[in-house]
Amino acid sequence: MRDYSETKPSELRQLIRKGSITCPTSGMCNGYAQANLVVLPKDLAFDFLMFAVKNPKACPLLEVTEPGSRGLTEIATDADIATDIPKYRIYENGEMTGEYSDVSAFWRDDLVSFLIGCSFSFEWELLAADVPVRHIEEGCNVPMYKTNIACKSAGVFHGNMVVSMRPIPYDLIPKAVLVTGAMPKVHGAPVHIGDPEAIGIKSIDKPDFGDAVTINDGEVPVFWPCGVTPQAVVMASKPEFCITHSPGHMFVTDVKNVNLKY
Amino acid sequence: MRDYSETKPSELRQLIRKGSITCPTSGMCNGYAQANLVVLPKDLAFDFLMFAVKNPKACPLLEVTEPGSRGLTEIATDADIATDIPKYRIYENGEMTGEYSDVSAFWRDDLVSFLIGCSFSFEWELLAADVPVRHIEEGCNVPMYKTNIACKSAGVFHGNMVVSMRPIPYDLIPKAVLVTGAMPKVHGAPVHIGDPEAIGIKSIDKPDFGDAVTINDGEVPVFWPCGVTPQAVVMASKPEFCITHSPGHMFVTDVKNVNLKY
Repeated sequence: MRDYSETKPSELRQLIRKGSITCPTSGMCNGYAQANLVVLPKDLAFDFLMFAVKNPKACPLLEVTEPGSRGLTEIATDADIATDIPKYRIYENGEMTGEYSDVSAFWRDDLVSFLIGCSFSFEWELLAADVPVRHIEEGCNVPMYKTNIACKSAGVFHGNMVVSMRPIPYDLIPKAVLVTGAMPKVHGAPVHIGDPEAIGIKSIDKPDFGDAVTINDGEVPVFWPCGVTPQAVVMASKPEFCITHSPGHMFVTDVKNVNLKY
Repeated sequence: MRDYSETKPSELRQLIRKGSITCPTSGMCNGYAQANLVVLPKDLAFDFLMFAVKNPKACPLLEVTEPGSRGLTEIATDADIATDIPKYRIYENGEMTGEYSDVSAFWRDDLVSFLIGCSFSFEWELLAADVPVRHIEEGCNVPMYKTNIACKSAGVFHGNMVVSMRPIPYDLIPKAVLVTGAMPKVHGAPVHIGDPEAIGIKSIDKPDFGDAVTINDGEVPVFWPCGVTPQAVVMASKPEFCITHSPGHMFVTDVKNVNLKY
Protein backbone atom coordinates (compact mmCIF):
# COMPACT_ATOMS: atom_id res chain seq x y z
CA MET A 1 0.00 0.00 0.00
CA ARG A 2 1.16 3.51 -0.79
CA ASP A 3 2.26 5.60 2.21
CA TYR A 4 -0.12 8.54 2.70
CA SER A 5 1.46 9.74 5.96
CA GLU A 6 2.83 12.92 4.37
CA THR A 7 -0.10 13.57 2.00
CA LYS A 8 -1.98 16.86 2.53
CA PRO A 9 -5.58 16.37 3.73
CA SER A 10 -7.09 18.13 0.71
CA GLU A 11 -5.16 15.82 -1.67
CA LEU A 12 -6.14 12.77 0.35
CA ARG A 13 -9.81 13.73 0.19
CA GLN A 14 -9.53 14.07 -3.61
CA LEU A 15 -8.04 10.57 -3.83
CA ILE A 16 -10.83 9.20 -1.65
CA ARG A 17 -13.45 11.03 -3.73
CA LYS A 18 -12.06 9.47 -6.93
CA GLY A 19 -12.26 6.03 -5.31
CA SER A 20 -8.47 5.57 -5.19
CA ILE A 21 -8.48 5.02 -1.40
CA THR A 22 -11.07 2.73 0.21
CA CYS A 23 -9.13 1.49 3.26
CA PRO A 24 -8.94 2.67 6.90
CA THR A 25 -7.34 6.12 7.35
CA SER A 26 -5.11 5.33 10.35
CA GLY A 27 -1.62 6.72 9.74
CA MET A 28 -2.67 9.01 6.89
CA CYS A 29 -1.91 12.77 6.85
CA ASN A 30 0.31 12.75 9.91
CA GLY A 31 -0.45 15.55 12.34
CA TYR A 32 -3.94 16.30 11.07
CA ALA A 33 -7.12 15.52 13.01
CA GLN A 34 -9.51 12.84 11.79
CA ALA A 35 -13.22 12.90 12.60
CA ASN A 36 -16.14 10.53 13.20
CA LEU A 37 -19.30 11.12 11.16
CA VAL A 38 -22.95 10.83 12.17
CA VAL A 39 -25.61 12.06 9.70
CA LEU A 40 -29.24 12.31 10.85
CA PRO A 41 -32.50 13.76 9.52
CA LYS A 42 -33.26 17.22 10.88
CA ASP A 43 -36.14 16.02 13.06
CA LEU A 44 -33.61 14.02 15.13
CA ALA A 45 -30.78 16.55 14.83
CA PHE A 46 -31.98 18.79 17.65
CA ASP A 47 -32.03 15.89 20.12
CA PHE A 48 -28.61 14.71 18.96
CA LEU A 49 -27.15 18.21 19.17
CA MET A 50 -28.52 18.41 22.73
CA PHE A 51 -26.99 15.00 23.48
CA ALA A 52 -23.60 16.19 22.24
CA VAL A 53 -23.76 19.45 24.19
CA LYS A 54 -24.67 17.55 27.37
CA ASN A 55 -21.97 14.89 26.85
CA PRO A 56 -19.01 16.79 25.42
CA LYS A 57 -16.41 14.29 26.62
CA ALA A 58 -17.97 11.36 24.78
CA CYS A 59 -19.29 13.43 21.88
CA PRO A 60 -17.01 16.43 21.19
CA LEU A 61 -18.35 18.33 18.18
CA LEU A 62 -15.83 19.61 15.65
CA GLU A 63 -18.47 20.85 13.20
CA VAL A 64 -22.20 20.59 12.54
CA THR A 65 -23.62 21.39 9.09
CA GLU A 66 -26.71 23.29 8.08
CA PRO A 67 -29.53 20.91 7.04
CA GLY A 68 -28.91 19.50 3.55
CA SER A 69 -25.40 20.88 3.20
CA ARG A 70 -22.65 18.50 2.03
CA GLY A 71 -19.94 21.14 2.51
CA LEU A 72 -17.94 22.16 5.56
CA THR A 73 -16.66 25.58 6.64
CA GLU A 74 -14.71 25.03 9.87
CA ILE A 75 -12.59 21.90 9.75
CA ALA A 76 -12.09 21.55 5.98
CA THR A 77 -12.57 23.49 2.77
CA ASP A 78 -13.47 21.95 -0.61
CA ALA A 79 -14.83 18.90 1.18
CA ASP A 80 -17.88 16.85 0.22
CA ILE A 81 -19.24 14.90 3.17
CA ALA A 82 -21.00 12.42 0.88
CA THR A 83 -17.86 11.36 -1.03
CA ASP A 84 -14.73 12.14 1.02
CA ILE A 85 -14.80 9.22 3.45
CA PRO A 86 -13.43 5.85 2.20
CA LYS A 87 -16.32 3.79 3.52
CA TYR A 88 -19.78 4.70 4.85
CA ARG A 89 -22.51 2.70 6.55
CA ILE A 90 -26.20 3.33 6.03
CA TYR A 91 -28.71 2.37 8.70
CA GLU A 92 -32.48 2.23 8.37
CA ASN A 93 -34.57 1.84 11.52
CA GLY A 94 -31.38 0.84 13.37
CA GLU A 95 -30.39 -1.94 10.92
CA MET A 96 -27.31 -1.57 8.72
CA THR A 97 -28.52 -1.85 5.12
CA GLY A 98 -25.21 -1.41 3.31
CA GLU A 99 -21.63 -0.14 3.09
CA TYR A 100 -20.72 2.36 0.34
CA SER A 101 -17.70 4.35 -0.80
CA ASP A 102 -20.00 7.20 -1.88
CA VAL A 103 -23.40 8.13 -0.40
CA SER A 104 -24.36 10.91 -2.87
CA ALA A 105 -27.25 8.80 -4.19
CA PHE A 106 -28.75 8.61 -0.69
CA TRP A 107 -28.40 12.30 0.18
CA ARG A 108 -31.49 14.23 1.31
CA ASP A 109 -32.23 17.92 1.87
CA ASP A 110 -33.04 17.34 5.54
CA LEU A 111 -29.76 15.67 6.55
CA VAL A 112 -27.58 17.27 9.25
CA SER A 113 -23.96 16.06 9.54
CA PHE A 114 -22.09 15.89 12.83
CA LEU A 115 -18.29 15.68 12.70
CA ILE A 116 -17.02 14.39 16.03
CA GLY A 117 -13.48 14.46 17.45
CA CYS A 118 -11.45 11.23 17.44
CA SER A 119 -8.82 9.85 19.81
CA PHE A 120 -6.28 9.52 16.97
CA SER A 121 -5.56 13.21 17.74
CA PHE A 122 -4.63 12.77 21.37
CA GLU A 123 -2.71 9.55 20.65
CA TRP A 124 -0.55 11.63 18.34
CA GLU A 125 0.14 14.04 21.20
CA LEU A 126 0.77 11.21 23.70
CA LEU A 127 3.40 9.67 21.40
CA ALA A 128 4.97 13.10 20.87
CA ALA A 129 5.27 13.36 24.67
CA ASP A 130 6.87 9.89 24.92
CA VAL A 131 3.82 8.26 26.50
CA PRO A 132 3.48 4.73 25.02
CA VAL A 133 0.26 3.80 23.19
CA ARG A 134 0.04 0.02 23.45
CA HIS A 135 -2.38 -0.84 20.62
CA ILE A 136 -0.22 1.14 18.21
CA GLU A 137 2.87 -0.75 19.45
CA GLU A 138 1.00 -4.04 19.03
CA GLY A 139 -0.47 -3.08 15.64
CA CYS A 140 -4.10 -3.71 16.58
CA ASN A 141 -7.29 -1.74 17.29
CA VAL A 142 -7.73 0.09 20.61
CA PRO A 143 -9.69 -1.97 23.20
CA MET A 144 -13.13 -0.48 23.93
CA TYR A 145 -15.57 -1.37 26.70
CA LYS A 146 -19.19 -0.71 27.62
CA THR A 147 -19.40 0.90 31.08
CA ASN A 148 -21.98 1.69 33.75
CA ILE A 149 -21.31 5.43 33.38
CA ALA A 150 -24.64 6.91 32.29
CA CYS A 151 -24.59 9.59 29.63
CA LYS A 152 -26.94 12.50 30.15
CA SER A 153 -30.11 11.84 28.16
CA ALA A 154 -31.44 14.21 25.50
CA GLY A 155 -34.78 13.60 23.83
CA VAL A 156 -34.77 10.10 22.30
CA PHE A 157 -31.05 9.58 22.94
CA HIS A 158 -29.81 7.84 26.09
CA GLY A 159 -27.30 5.17 27.05
CA ASN A 160 -24.04 4.44 28.83
CA MET A 161 -20.59 5.66 27.90
CA VAL A 162 -18.23 3.47 25.87
CA VAL A 163 -14.57 3.96 26.83
CA SER A 164 -11.25 3.19 25.18
CA MET A 165 -8.37 1.85 27.32
CA ARG A 166 -4.64 2.43 27.14
CA PRO A 167 -2.27 0.87 29.71
CA ILE A 168 0.00 3.63 31.07
CA PRO A 169 3.10 3.21 33.31
CA TYR A 170 2.40 4.63 36.80
CA ASP A 171 4.92 7.42 36.53
CA LEU A 172 3.54 8.64 33.18
CA ILE A 173 -0.11 8.90 34.27
CA PRO A 174 0.10 12.57 35.29
CA LYS A 175 1.61 13.42 31.92
CA ALA A 176 -1.06 11.39 30.09
CA VAL A 177 -3.80 13.27 32.01
CA LEU A 178 -2.28 16.67 31.26
CA VAL A 179 -1.64 15.97 27.56
CA THR A 180 -5.15 14.68 26.89
CA GLY A 181 -6.87 17.09 29.33
CA ALA A 182 -5.51 19.93 27.18
CA MET A 183 -7.50 18.57 24.21
CA PRO A 184 -11.20 18.65 25.20
CA LYS A 185 -12.27 18.70 21.52
CA VAL A 186 -11.00 15.13 21.16
CA HIS A 187 -12.42 13.57 24.37
CA GLY A 188 -10.04 15.31 26.82
CA ALA A 189 -8.83 13.84 30.12
CA PRO A 190 -9.50 10.22 31.19
CA VAL A 191 -12.84 9.40 32.87
CA HIS A 192 -11.32 6.68 35.02
CA ILE A 193 -7.90 5.48 36.12
CA GLY A 194 -7.20 2.13 37.70
CA ASP A 195 -10.15 -0.10 38.59
CA PRO A 196 -12.13 -1.51 35.63
CA GLU A 197 -14.84 -2.98 37.89
CA ALA A 198 -15.62 0.44 39.34
CA ILE A 199 -17.02 1.47 35.96
CA GLY A 200 -18.72 -1.85 35.24
CA ILE A 201 -16.00 -3.59 33.23
CA LYS A 202 -15.98 -7.27 34.25
CA SER A 203 -13.07 -8.55 32.18
CA ILE A 204 -10.29 -6.29 30.96
CA ASP A 205 -9.10 -9.14 28.69
CA LYS A 206 -12.38 -9.19 26.76
CA PRO A 207 -13.12 -5.78 25.26
CA ASP A 208 -16.60 -5.25 23.82
CA PHE A 209 -15.10 -3.68 20.68
CA GLY A 210 -11.57 -3.67 19.24
CA ASP A 211 -8.72 -5.88 20.44
CA ALA A 212 -7.26 -6.84 23.84
CA VAL A 213 -3.77 -5.44 24.54
CA THR A 214 -0.98 -6.38 26.96
CA ILE A 215 -0.94 -4.68 30.36
CA ASN A 216 2.58 -4.97 31.79
CA ASP A 217 3.63 -4.97 35.44
CA GLY A 218 3.81 -1.40 36.65
CA GLU A 219 1.10 -0.24 34.27
CA VAL A 220 -2.44 0.88 35.04
CA PRO A 221 -5.45 0.70 32.70
CA VAL A 222 -6.52 4.27 31.89
CA PHE A 223 -9.96 4.86 30.36
CA TRP A 224 -10.99 7.68 28.04
CA PRO A 225 -14.47 8.55 26.70
CA CYS A 226 -14.81 6.97 23.27
CA GLY A 227 -16.36 8.20 20.03
CA VAL A 228 -18.20 4.88 19.73
CA THR A 229 -20.54 6.23 22.44
CA PRO A 230 -22.58 8.54 20.17
CA GLN A 231 -22.83 5.85 17.46
CA ALA A 232 -24.03 3.28 20.01
CA VAL A 233 -26.54 5.76 21.46
CA VAL A 234 -27.86 6.71 18.01
CA MET A 235 -28.24 3.07 16.91
CA ALA A 236 -30.05 2.15 20.13
CA SER A 237 -32.72 4.73 19.23
CA LYS A 238 -33.28 3.03 15.83
CA PRO A 239 -33.50 6.20 13.72
CA GLU A 240 -35.48 5.96 10.50
CA PHE A 241 -32.32 6.90 8.54
CA CYS A 242 -28.68 7.43 9.49
CA ILE A 243 -25.30 7.53 7.77
CA THR A 244 -22.01 6.98 9.63
CA HIS A 245 -18.41 6.32 8.64
CA SER A 246 -17.33 2.67 8.72
CA PRO A 247 -15.10 1.92 11.75
CA GLY A 248 -11.57 3.20 11.12
CA HIS A 249 -12.56 4.92 7.87
CA MET A 250 -12.53 8.49 9.11
CA PHE A 251 -12.99 11.97 7.67
CA VAL A 252 -9.54 13.61 7.44
CA THR A 253 -9.71 17.31 8.37
CA ASP A 254 -7.50 20.33 7.59
CA VAL A 255 -7.05 20.95 11.34
CA LYS A 256 -3.68 20.15 12.89
CA ASN A 257 -3.95 18.11 16.07
CA VAL A 258 -1.84 20.68 17.88
CA ASN A 259 -4.46 23.35 17.08
CA LEU A 260 -7.17 21.35 18.84
CA LYS A 261 -5.67 22.60 22.10
CA TYR A 262 -6.67 26.23 21.56
CA MET B 1 -28.64 46.38 51.61
CA ARG B 2 -27.95 43.04 53.24
CA ASP B 3 -24.65 41.41 52.30
CA TYR B 4 -25.30 38.17 50.38
CA SER B 5 -21.63 37.47 49.57
CA GLU B 6 -21.50 34.43 51.88
CA THR B 7 -25.04 33.17 51.19
CA LYS B 8 -25.32 29.68 49.64
CA PRO B 9 -26.72 29.69 46.08
CA SER B 10 -29.72 27.50 47.00
CA GLU B 11 -30.67 29.90 49.82
CA LEU B 12 -30.20 32.91 47.57
CA ARG B 13 -32.48 31.39 44.92
CA GLN B 14 -35.15 30.82 47.61
CA LEU B 15 -34.94 34.49 48.64
CA ILE B 16 -35.22 35.57 45.01
CA ARG B 17 -38.18 33.22 44.48
CA LYS B 18 -39.99 34.75 47.46
CA GLY B 19 -39.42 38.21 46.03
CA SER B 20 -37.03 39.25 48.83
CA ILE B 21 -34.23 40.08 46.36
CA THR B 22 -34.96 42.05 43.19
CA CYS B 23 -31.61 43.79 42.62
CA PRO B 24 -28.52 42.90 40.51
CA THR B 25 -26.65 39.80 41.69
CA SER B 26 -23.08 41.12 41.41
CA GLY B 27 -21.14 40.25 44.58
CA MET B 28 -23.62 37.62 45.75
CA CYS B 29 -22.60 34.03 46.63
CA ASN B 30 -18.87 34.62 46.36
CA GLY B 31 -17.06 31.92 44.44
CA TYR B 32 -20.11 30.56 42.64
CA ALA B 33 -20.72 30.98 38.90
CA GLN B 34 -23.57 33.17 37.66
CA ALA B 35 -25.27 32.59 34.32
CA ASN B 36 -27.00 34.53 31.54
CA LEU B 37 -30.45 33.32 30.46
CA VAL B 38 -32.01 33.12 27.00
CA VAL B 39 -35.37 31.33 26.63
CA LEU B 40 -36.72 30.60 23.15
CA PRO B 41 -39.56 28.56 21.61
CA LYS B 42 -38.46 25.14 20.40
CA ASP B 43 -38.78 26.04 16.70
CA LEU B 44 -35.92 28.55 17.18
CA ALA B 45 -33.99 26.47 19.72
CA PHE B 46 -32.24 24.28 17.15
CA ASP B 47 -30.84 27.30 15.32
CA PHE B 48 -29.77 28.91 18.60
CA LEU B 49 -28.15 25.71 19.82
CA MET B 50 -26.26 25.55 16.52
CA PHE B 51 -25.25 29.20 16.95
CA ALA B 52 -23.90 28.47 20.43
CA VAL B 53 -22.01 25.37 19.29
CA LYS B 54 -20.44 27.34 16.43
CA ASN B 55 -19.57 30.33 18.63
CA PRO B 56 -18.51 28.81 21.95
CA LYS B 57 -16.34 31.76 22.98
CA ALA B 58 -19.17 34.28 22.75
CA CYS B 59 -21.88 31.83 23.77
CA PRO B 60 -20.53 29.17 26.17
CA LEU B 61 -23.38 26.88 27.21
CA LEU B 62 -23.53 25.81 30.85
CA GLU B 63 -26.87 24.01 30.50
CA VAL B 64 -29.75 23.65 28.03
CA THR B 65 -33.15 22.38 29.21
CA GLU B 66 -35.56 19.96 27.63
CA PRO B 67 -38.49 21.80 25.98
CA GLY B 68 -40.98 23.02 28.59
CA SER B 69 -38.84 22.18 31.60
CA ARG B 70 -38.39 24.85 34.28
CA GLY B 71 -35.92 22.70 36.24
CA LEU B 72 -32.17 22.23 35.88
CA THR B 73 -30.03 19.14 36.42
CA GLU B 74 -26.43 20.23 35.79
CA ILE B 75 -25.67 23.61 37.28
CA ALA B 76 -28.29 23.75 40.03
CA THR B 77 -30.76 21.54 41.87
CA ASP B 78 -34.13 22.66 43.24
CA ALA B 79 -34.07 25.59 40.82
CA ASP B 80 -37.03 27.08 38.96
CA ILE B 81 -35.94 29.02 35.90
CA ALA B 82 -39.18 31.01 35.85
CA THR B 83 -38.83 32.41 39.38
CA ASP B 84 -35.19 32.27 40.53
CA ILE B 85 -33.83 35.31 38.70
CA PRO B 86 -34.43 38.73 40.32
CA LYS B 87 -35.56 40.42 37.11
CA TYR B 88 -36.56 39.11 33.67
CA ARG B 89 -37.28 40.77 30.36
CA ILE B 90 -39.90 39.56 27.91
CA TYR B 91 -39.56 40.31 24.23
CA GLU B 92 -42.22 39.84 21.54
CA ASN B 93 -41.16 40.14 17.89
CA GLY B 94 -37.90 41.73 19.07
CA GLU B 95 -39.58 44.46 21.21
CA MET B 96 -39.29 44.41 25.00
CA THR B 97 -42.83 44.24 26.35
CA GLY B 98 -42.08 44.17 30.07
CA GLU B 99 -39.82 43.46 33.05
CA TYR B 100 -40.96 40.96 35.67
CA SER B 101 -39.64 39.36 38.86
CA ASP B 102 -41.47 36.12 37.99
CA VAL B 103 -42.33 34.79 34.52
CA SER B 104 -44.38 31.73 35.56
CA ALA B 105 -47.52 33.26 34.05
CA PHE B 106 -45.81 33.47 30.65
CA TRP B 107 -44.36 29.96 30.62
CA ARG B 108 -45.11 27.64 27.68
CA ASP B 109 -44.59 23.94 27.01
CA ASP B 110 -42.38 24.66 24.01
CA LEU B 111 -39.81 26.89 25.74
CA VAL B 112 -36.15 25.84 25.81
CA SER B 113 -33.85 27.60 28.28
CA PHE B 114 -30.19 28.31 27.60
CA LEU B 115 -27.94 29.09 30.58
CA ILE B 116 -24.81 30.81 29.32
CA GLY B 117 -21.50 31.39 31.13
CA CYS B 118 -20.74 34.87 32.46
CA SER B 119 -17.49 36.81 32.84
CA PHE B 120 -18.12 37.30 36.58
CA SER B 121 -16.51 33.84 36.91
CA PHE B 122 -13.21 34.68 35.27
CA GLU B 123 -13.06 38.08 36.96
CA TRP B 124 -13.15 36.21 40.24
CA GLU B 125 -10.15 34.14 39.11
CA LEU B 126 -8.29 37.23 37.79
CA LEU B 127 -8.65 38.97 41.15
CA ALA B 128 -7.54 35.81 42.96
CA ALA B 129 -4.40 35.87 40.76
CA ASP B 130 -3.75 39.56 41.58
CA VAL B 131 -4.71 40.81 38.12
CA PRO B 132 -6.60 44.12 38.55
CA VAL B 133 -10.16 44.41 37.19
CA ARG B 134 -10.67 48.13 36.58
CA HIS B 135 -14.48 48.38 36.47
CA ILE B 136 -14.67 46.60 39.82
CA GLU B 137 -12.08 49.04 41.26
CA GLU B 138 -14.09 51.96 39.86
CA GLY B 139 -17.45 50.53 40.95
CA CYS B 140 -19.09 50.66 37.53
CA ASN B 141 -20.25 48.29 34.78
CA VAL B 142 -17.69 46.67 32.45
CA PRO B 143 -17.25 48.58 29.14
CA MET B 144 -18.62 46.62 26.15
CA TYR B 145 -18.16 47.33 22.45
CA LYS B 146 -19.62 46.19 19.14
CA THR B 147 -16.86 44.82 16.88
CA ASN B 148 -16.30 43.85 13.24
CA ILE B 149 -15.59 40.23 14.27
CA ALA B 150 -18.28 38.17 12.52
CA CYS B 151 -19.87 35.34 14.47
CA LYS B 152 -20.50 32.15 12.54
CA SER B 153 -24.11 32.18 11.35
CA ALA B 154 -26.60 29.45 12.20
CA GLY B 155 -30.07 29.43 10.68
CA VAL B 156 -31.78 32.75 11.42
CA PHE B 157 -29.03 33.89 13.81
CA HIS B 158 -26.13 36.01 12.63
CA GLY B 159 -24.22 39.11 13.72
CA ASN B 160 -20.93 40.45 15.03
CA MET B 161 -19.29 39.71 18.35
CA VAL B 162 -19.71 42.08 21.29
CA VAL B 163 -16.62 42.24 23.52
CA SER B 164 -15.91 43.39 27.05
CA MET B 165 -12.70 45.30 27.79
CA ARG B 166 -10.41 45.29 30.80
CA PRO B 167 -7.21 47.38 30.85
CA ILE B 168 -4.32 45.13 31.93
CA PRO B 169 -0.73 46.17 32.83
CA TYR B 170 1.72 44.92 30.16
CA ASP B 171 3.52 42.52 32.48
CA LEU B 172 0.29 40.88 33.65
CA ILE B 173 -1.12 40.14 30.17
CA PRO B 174 0.36 36.62 29.94
CA LYS B 175 -1.15 35.79 33.34
CA ALA B 176 -4.53 37.23 32.31
CA VAL B 177 -4.48 35.10 29.11
CA LEU B 178 -3.58 31.92 31.00
CA VAL B 179 -6.11 32.43 33.81
CA THR B 180 -9.02 33.11 31.45
CA GLY B 181 -7.85 30.67 28.76
CA ALA B 182 -8.23 27.92 31.37
CA MET B 183 -11.94 28.75 31.66
CA PRO B 184 -13.50 28.16 28.21
CA LYS B 185 -16.97 27.69 29.76
CA VAL B 186 -16.98 31.38 30.69
CA HIS B 187 -15.68 32.93 27.44
CA GLY B 188 -12.05 31.75 27.80
CA ALA B 189 -8.99 33.63 26.52
CA PRO B 190 -9.14 37.17 25.06
CA VAL B 191 -10.07 37.58 21.38
CA HIS B 192 -7.90 40.65 20.95
CA ILE B 193 -5.12 42.45 22.79
CA GLY B 194 -3.98 45.97 22.05
CA ASP B 195 -5.49 47.78 19.06
CA PRO B 196 -9.20 48.64 19.37
CA GLU B 197 -9.39 49.83 15.73
CA ALA B 198 -8.24 46.45 14.44
CA ILE B 199 -11.55 44.98 15.62
CA GLY B 200 -13.67 47.93 14.52
CA ILE B 201 -13.78 49.92 17.77
CA LYS B 202 -13.56 53.64 16.87
CA SER B 203 -13.51 55.19 20.34
CA ILE B 204 -12.37 53.29 23.40
CA ASP B 205 -13.80 56.11 25.55
CA LYS B 206 -17.33 55.53 24.27
CA PRO B 207 -18.41 51.94 24.92
CA ASP B 208 -21.61 50.77 23.22
CA PHE B 209 -22.84 49.23 26.50
CA GLY B 210 -21.73 49.66 30.12
CA ASP B 211 -19.36 52.37 31.36
CA ALA B 212 -16.00 53.79 30.24
CA VAL B 213 -13.08 53.00 32.56
CA THR B 214 -9.64 54.52 33.09
CA ILE B 215 -6.73 53.10 31.06
CA ASN B 216 -3.48 54.04 32.83
CA ASP B 217 -0.03 54.46 31.30
CA GLY B 218 1.57 51.06 30.91
CA GLU B 219 -1.79 49.33 30.45
CA VAL B 220 -3.24 47.74 27.31
CA PRO B 221 -6.93 47.28 26.50
CA VAL B 222 -7.67 43.56 26.46
CA PHE B 223 -10.89 42.32 24.85
CA TRP B 224 -12.88 39.21 25.75
CA PRO B 225 -15.94 37.71 24.00
CA CYS B 226 -19.03 38.98 25.83
CA GLY B 227 -22.29 37.29 26.81
CA VAL B 228 -24.17 40.26 25.36
CA THR B 229 -23.35 38.75 21.93
CA PRO B 230 -26.01 36.01 22.00
CA GLN B 231 -28.64 38.42 23.35
CA ALA B 232 -27.86 40.95 20.60
CA VAL B 233 -27.94 38.23 17.95
CA VAL B 234 -31.25 36.84 19.21
CA MET B 235 -32.88 40.28 19.37
CA ALA B 236 -31.71 41.14 15.84
CA SER B 237 -33.67 38.13 14.57
CA LYS B 238 -36.89 39.48 16.21
CA PRO B 239 -38.14 36.18 17.61
CA GLU B 240 -41.88 35.88 18.16
CA PHE B 241 -41.26 35.29 21.90
CA CYS B 242 -38.17 35.39 24.10
CA ILE B 243 -37.34 35.68 27.80
CA THR B 244 -33.96 36.87 29.08
CA HIS B 245 -32.56 37.98 32.42
CA SER B 246 -32.38 41.76 32.92
CA PRO B 247 -28.79 43.05 32.62
CA GLY B 248 -26.86 42.30 35.82
CA HIS B 249 -29.71 40.21 37.28
CA MET B 250 -28.18 36.78 36.77
CA PHE B 251 -29.05 33.19 37.60
CA VAL B 252 -26.80 32.08 40.50
CA THR B 253 -25.62 28.47 40.03
CA ASP B 254 -24.37 25.78 42.44
CA VAL B 255 -21.13 25.51 40.41
CA LYS B 256 -17.96 26.93 41.95
CA ASN B 257 -16.01 29.13 39.56
CA VAL B 258 -12.91 27.05 40.18
CA ASN B 259 -14.75 23.97 38.89
CA LEU B 260 -15.41 25.65 35.55
CA LYS B 261 -11.77 24.89 34.68
CA TYR B 262 -12.27 21.14 34.52
